Amino acid sequence: MAQAIAPASIGNSEFDRDTAVSRRGPGVFDATLSEGWTIFDAVNGGYLLALVGRALGEELPHSDPFSITAHYLTASRPGPAEIRTETIRAGRTLSTGQATLVQYDAQGAPVERLRVLASYGDLDALDPEVRTSAKPPVLPPVEQCLGASDAPDGKVVPGSNAITERLLLKLDPATIGWAVGQPSGKGETRAWFGLADGRDPDPLSLLLAVDALPPTAFDLGLMGWMPTVELTVHVRHRPAPGPLRVAVATRNLAHGFLEEDAEVWDSADRLVAQSRQLARVVQPG
Amino acid sequence: MAQAIAPASIGNSEFDRDTAVSRRGPGVFDATLSEGWTIFDAVNGGYLLALVGRALGEELPHSDPFSITAHYLTASRPGPAEIRTETIRAGRTLSTGQATLVQYDAQGAPVERLRVLASYGDLDALDPEVRTSAKPPVLPPVEQCLGASDAPDGKVVPGSNAITERLLLKLDPATIGWAVGQPSGKGETRAWFGLADGRDPDPLSLLLAVDALPPTAFDLGLMGWMPTVELTVHVRHRPAPGPLRVAVATRNLAHGFLEEDAEVWDSADRLVAQSRQLARVVQPG
Repeated sequence: MAQAIAPASIGNSEFDRDTAVSRRGPGVFDATLSEGWTIFDAVNGGYLLALVGRALGEELPHSDPFSITAHYLTASRPGPAEIRTETIRAGRTLSTGQATLVQYDAQGAPVERLRVLASYGDLDALDPEVRTSAKPPVLPPVEQCLGASDAPDGKVVPGSNAITERLLLKLDPATIGWAVGQPSGKGETRAWFGLADGRDPDPLSLLLAVDALPPTAFDLGLMGWMPTVELTVHVRHRPAPGPLRVAVATRNLAHGFLEEDAEVWDSADRLVAQSRQLARVVQPG
Repeated sequence: MAQAIAPASIGNSEFDRDTAVSRRGPGVFDATLSEGWTIFDAVNGGYLLALVGRALGEELPHSDPFSITAHYLTASRPGPAEIRTETIRAGRTLSTGQATLVQYDAQGAPVERLRVLASYGDLDALDPEVRTSAKPPVLPPVEQCLGASDAPDGKVVPGSNAITERLLLKLDPATIGWAVGQPSGKGETRAWFGLADGRDPDPLSLLLAVDALPPTAFDLGLMGWMPTVELTVHVRHRPAPGPLRVAVATRNLAHGFLEEDAEVWDSADRLVAQSRQLARVVQPG
């Protein structure tokens, strides 16, 4: 008889294990970049941001990211990594810090993968008042949305898709016409988002959620690779348990670059995170 | 007979003189924060970003900001300042750098005012293709818009307003109902933007333009002070000569913070810059 397995929870899940950091000394952490969060054979940028964000939260006096920016410098690889953090300012309600993630090359030289600048606070000390005028995205019920398992060969995009096995991503059919050669031309993607092992969202998994959907450029008919130059996320409230709704849009694809704006809404209809990234358009050869 | 004065131009203007940096050594610049760019008695955040942005452009192999983020740590004061830059990565088409602006206190100790992380490129080497789906803001003709000189006592907001004398800012009347006690409640501000001495826009003045309009919170009826925690600007094209149109909006004022999204459109109808800032809501006492 199979033994009952405790469901995954915040602190005990694939996401927590794969974003774990181990303090080696003041401002220095060890980590292992998992191969489980790759897309297009690249380690997902939101996963990297969450991992570095965890280290910063452990180093700074405040533990929740309020505004966090990453510049992606070189391609990360699954395997050992080192994070070095700097406390820039320790304030009363906000602290600011910087972090770098490096990996070592075959000669043992450190190669910087990303540089992060962020301000942290306490999401449990927020003023309760809400005057949000934005409205949640309209999505079909999750049963009518489509995921990687619905794709012809189980693959949504070319290359390694390991991240799709870690996520419960159910895309609005209106935004994935590109999968059958009929992009809508609007540059929008919407999805229900969760973690495959059932772990509830938290501020760090929001950093993953904003970068986990297929590129909006697909919906413009551009099937190339869109490496992220910079990603900035605002975390505005601790997310309630349950599924998230993520809406991503691009409005300024021009001159070889595009911006992508993402909104993350929790089950209590709060706009819990907003992000913008600048990505480069790399056309298929 | 008055001698003809050469009109201000890029490189020879109030803005250029007040954002000038002087290299003291590798990665170290001196500057003077002008009192001419204050609002609410504070040195304007966009002006500070432009000044630090100029130093980074002189230090990095690439001279144009593509994505630049600042975290504002302590209040800057008019007077001497020092900028220290770090080259993080010198790439082929993009370079990434970090910078800090410090001022010295009465005891001679350095106090950090802002920390900046940015990626730079060459705006003259961009792919010409444009697929922008966003549309320029609709503004009344400039003659029907209102500026500081139209306000009852020449003051748009309380405190020092020196920056309003440096700008040609003409606001859409539909977005300044707050000035007569009738905020629209939409959280939007739109304006024609130029520099008072007639200098044309350039990538650095775009960093000023995104933070130069009255707070969108005024349009929500909140007349408090909104200090910027973090500001991220994407510069997407060198602006054409002539007036800019700036549209700012907030959609997520909640829990004591708000985001403000700004778009800057040039006279050629290009979306030349986009920004988002996270600001704190400080209610009037």
